[in-house]
Amino acid sequence: MLKATIDTETFREAIDAVAALVTECRLHVDGNGMRTRAVDTANVAMVSLELDKDAFATYESTPEDLGLDVAKMKNIIGMMGKDDTLSLNLAEGSHKLELSFGSYQYSVTLLDVNTIRKDPSLPNVELPGKVELAGSALSSAIKTADVISDKIALGIDPKADLFFMAAEGDTDHIKLELSRSQLISLDAADARSLFSLDYLKDMGKVMGRAGKITLALGIDHPVKFTFDLAEGKGRVEYLLAPRIEAD
Amino acid sequence: MLKATIDTETFREAIDAVAALVTECRLHVDGNGMRTRAVDTANVAMVSLELDKDAFATYESTPEDLGLDVAKMKNIIGMMGKDDTLSLNLAEGSHKLELSFGSYQYSVTLLDVNTIRKDPSLPNVELPGKVELAGSALSSAIKTADVISDKIALGIDPKADLFFMAAEGDTDHIKLELSRSQLISLDAADARSLFSLDYLKDMGKVMGRAGKITLALGIDHPVKFTFDLAEGKGRVEYLLAPRIEAD
Amino acid sequence: MLKATIDTETFREAIDAVAALVTECRLHVDGNGMRTRAVDTANVAMVSLELDKDAFATYESTPEDLGLDVAKMKNIIGMMGKDDTLSLNLAEGSHKLELSFGSYQYSVTLLDVNTIRKDPSLPNVELPGKVELAGSALSSAIKTADVISDKIALGIDPKADLFFMAAEGDTDHIKLELSRSQLISLDAADARSLFSLDYLKDMGKVMGRAGKITLALGIDHPVKFTFDLAEGKGRVEYLLAPRIEAD
Repeated sequence: MLKATIDTETFREAIDAVAALVTECRLHVDGNGMRTRAVDTANVAMVSLELDKDAFATYESTPEDLGLDVAKMKNIIGMMGKDDTLSLNLAEGSHKLELSFGSYQYSVTLLDVNTIRKDPSLPNVELPGKVELAGSALSSAIKTADVISDKIALGIDPKADLFFMAAEGDTDHIKLELSRSQLISLDAADARSLFSLDYLKDMGKVMGRAGKITLALGIDHPVKFTFDLAEGKGRVEYLLAPRIEAD
Repeated sequence: MLKATIDTETFREAIDAVAALVTECRLHVDGNGMRTRAVDTANVAMVSLELDKDAFATYESTPEDLGLDVAKMKNIIGMMGKDDTLSLNLAEGSHKLELSFGSYQYSVTLLDVNTIRKDPSLPNVELPGKVELAGSALSSAIKTADVISDKIALGIDPKADLFFMAAEGDTDHIKLELSRSQLISLDAADARSLFSLDYLKDMGKVMGRAGKITLALGIDHPVKFTFDLAEGKGRVEYLLAPRIEAD
Repeated sequence: MLKATIDTETFREAIDAVAALVTECRLHVDGNGMRTRAVDTANVAMVSLELDKDAFATYESTPEDLGLDVAKMKNIIGMMGKDDTLSLNLAEGSHKLELSFGSYQYSVTLLDVNTIRKDPSLPNVELPGKVELAGSALSSAIKTADVISDKIALGIDPKADLFFMAAEGDTDHIKLELSRSQLISLDAADARSLFSLDYLKDMGKVMGRAGKITLALGIDHPVKFTFDLAEGKGRVEYLLAPRIEAD
């Protein structure tokens, strides 16, 4: 059983964050809120989402695992107005999730959770470098790199006390350096890894809306992006595996 | 002979209303104004347009049947500015319609009316249920249904005293219910028919701009949409045949 | 050696003007500024660009011929913000042009100038008719003509004391007449030539932003469009060959 109401914009951001990587997921609901964790089909990127019950206007739930068609949910939420309040309703034992917004009632049959990949376990990675910056700065760097390349290096130069991103095209090269004063915070540690822009572009669209993104970086290690939803009552974490750098 | 000037925006709405269903039509002009009636190639939808001479700033005409390339006219009007006044001019015995707007003069050769389908006669249908609502609400319902299905049911539930639209996808279902207080008016009578969204989408774009749309509905009967142009000095009527509902 | 800073918007307009016709060019820089002249692959249209050193905030240069990938430069400048200042930097003997904007550094390898067509010489044409008009009026006429045809006639009618453009479709015809009072200035001389809209469309997008365009016209002769950049500290000239008019 699930019975909740939430600001449409907040739920849209949560679903968009998941939809950037996967088309379906296992959504775990219980008395404390909602959470999901999913990896993309190529096992390169992982998304974790948590929405505390405080992120909802009203919230009541028994523990359930819901098979969610994330892509369809994103379409449906796209039809809702900005000012709508969204009601979520799942009757005891039912497989139909009812969404109400404005004068609309939308009913979606949940997917069989057994047909959806199990939640991945969180890999244990040591990422000593930390950077906090505005989501818009990160998103703009990703878009800029995408003009000339299909991959991007993200790193920290502890000597120069700066965070950098760099991309190489066939005959050209672009570099963005943000010094400590241009960042929200910097825990300098030697770090540099190369990532596929294919993944980062989709994540970047979601992260561009966040006021603050925390990056955790290492040397040829994954990058972890963390940001808040609903004024801290929800969290998204992206983990993206590095690409092998050809010399 | 035709000699008339009209606010460009009004003429644009009139042409757009016809262009939603057909690419050419017989435009009948005489001293009282303009009118046309046309069915789409599949005989599923009909549009009737009337523009009284009062809808024009100046108007003078002898009775004529003009073969109008509606699609081309729509393109041409698309080039005009919002604030332009449009002059229409057809010399006695000429087959060239002259349009002037701003500093532009546009001359179009009329189609031979004999190559265009004759005006259909208006079918005699009894549609007991009547609903008046904002064009934007209707247009938004059509767009929402289109996300999950290719057909939509429109109906009236006299017991619940409401107008509804409903659409079914493979595994989901969406319903919009508008009670009497959310409508401009309601003549409740049992009504429910299924319609193709293909047609409704194009009509919906035109109807979305109208302040008030009147729907007339029956049980497995056509739907009739009526709305005003030029503050009541013109009228558009759409008639759309129902689809057979598969069980 | 080149070391200059310039308002991004000014440089964007300069590059866009060249990119409307060619994908690469020889950019000549020296102590007085930058200039280039290039013809399109079909030898139908020519662009000349001059940017005086006063168009730059700071400027210092030895004489150099730079092989510029105009299409790529346009993409890169498209990533820059409106308020950015752009720094251009080419070290003595280097083939890498460094562009800095915001916190970004972009490095592009110049093309070998010997692989790029030599600067065309300016043909000696006598164009007695002259018209000055707003760029937006010219651009809108080009867009309007494009709806019904692939070519446009531009001309001056000295008797009627007006500038005209005319386009013919299969069954229709559009004409724009601008009298002296609707123009910035008019040097009336009999003129009429036919031009391909393919070329004019791309030029029109660039010219639409200019406050004033000067046209020079003759009879079945090329048209010359001239407009200023950077408040007169730069100039663009387009020369477009006429099409043969079929009778």
